[in-house]
Amino acid sequence: MKKHVIIVAGGKGLRMGGEIPKQFLPVGGKPVLMRTMEAFHAYDSTIHIILVLPVSQQAYWKELCTSYGFALSHDIADGGETRFHSVRNGLALVEGEGLVGVHDGVRPFVSQEVIAGCYAEAVHKKAVIPVIDVVETVRHLTDAGSETVPRNFYKLVQTPQVFDISLLKEAYRQEYTEAFTDDASVVEARGHEVCLVPGNRENIKLTTPFDLKVAEALL
Amino acid sequence: MKKHVIIVAGGKGLRMGGEIPKQFLPVGGKPVLMRTMEAFHAYDSTIHIILVLPVSQQAYWKELCTSYGFALSHDIADGGETRFHSVRNGLALVEGEGLVGVHDGVRPFVSQEVIAGCYAEAVHKKAVIPVIDVVETVRHLTDAGSETVPRNFYKLVQTPQVFDISLLKEAYRQEYTEAFTDDASVVEARGHEVCLVPGNRENIKLTTPFDLKVAEALL
Repeated sequence: MKKHVIIVAGGKGLRMGGEIPKQFLPVGGKPVLMRTMEAFHAYDSTIHIILVLPVSQQAYWKELCTSYGFALSHDIADGGETRFHSVRNGLALVEGEGLVGVHDGVRPFVSQEVIAGCYAEAVHKKAVIPVIDVVETVRHLTDAGSETVPRNFYKLVQTPQVFDISLLKEAYRQEYTEAFTDDASVVEARGHEVCLVPGNRENIKLTTPFDLKVAEALL
Repeated sequence: MKKHVIIVAGGKGLRMGGEIPKQFLPVGGKPVLMRTMEAFHAYDSTIHIILVLPVSQQAYWKELCTSYGFALSHDIADGGETRFHSVRNGLALVEGEGLVGVHDGVRPFVSQEVIAGCYAEAVHKKAVIPVIDVVETVRHLTDAGSETVPRNFYKLVQTPQVFDISLLKEAYRQEYTEAFTDDASVVEARGHEVCLVPGNRENIKLTTPFDLKVAEALL
């Protein structure tokens, strides 16, 4: 079954406080985004990789590929106004039947087991996302203040979120709403159930300087 | 105003997979617990520190103190069956009026700002906990499956949780229920509102080998 992955790297990196968008920052001497793409290539060397990047960053990315000798074949789609629009642009480059994953460009530490598990389960379930337990106590903000809620009823969602291509394409024909925080929420809004599989704890999203320290430690 | 802190170190460390309970594992060459206690001493050198440890670990702890030359003055209380019982045992060593914090022994990276903020706010609010934003998408498990919930309505709870001594003592006279996952939930069950203040992202709870890697990176 043909497999695709859309790597979403729309981040402008403002939260890092630096000039360089976070997906380009080097971790262990190599830009985050290259490590992320390599994880999918290691899973399946025939997977079709689509990288979604803001137009303004594409020239810089190509320079980076040259200077790092990064030869992994991939297509590039234009980043959109929100994550939803970015994914939709990436999806336009996916053709035929099969499975398509959507993965955050700044999650280089996804394990091979998690990638394989998501794609394998998606063959039958058509919509699969990796989740992990919440370690901390969770509080829910209410009109009156806040309340403790039982944390075993909550999960934190990671990527790759993997879908049947037709299902995801149909879901992305919907009009955008702010409730679309990830691909699963888009698919659910079309009435399709989402299957949860175990993620890996190291599969963190690198969004702050703190995360970069953690990333260096993981290598 | 007199300040106390109860450092709870009841962990048997099973999740670490090793023989040594996690609170004793060295981070940057020093047991986690010593780093945690030093954070409170650095905040206020007159703070009364109460360490809650399982009886079976107390002799080992004293040996560790000797071998590391750890001279920070503290009382020791016996660990109980659950966190609730451990905190209650620690509270028995707190006398008079003032403020008492309860802190996880395996959170050595709490910032000075967070400690100071919690105690300062507790003077008036009487029940204060530090919280941080959820970075990931949050899913809520339901009878039917699961659903995405808006993550800006959820916060992750850290420690120290700081209280007016009388209020916390009264709350801990309640009978234990499994809903008591932290001290805030015990106080709320008595009908007292809890005030949220910002935590610090580095203030992670060291519970798995992954966290230890992160801890080494933070030093």
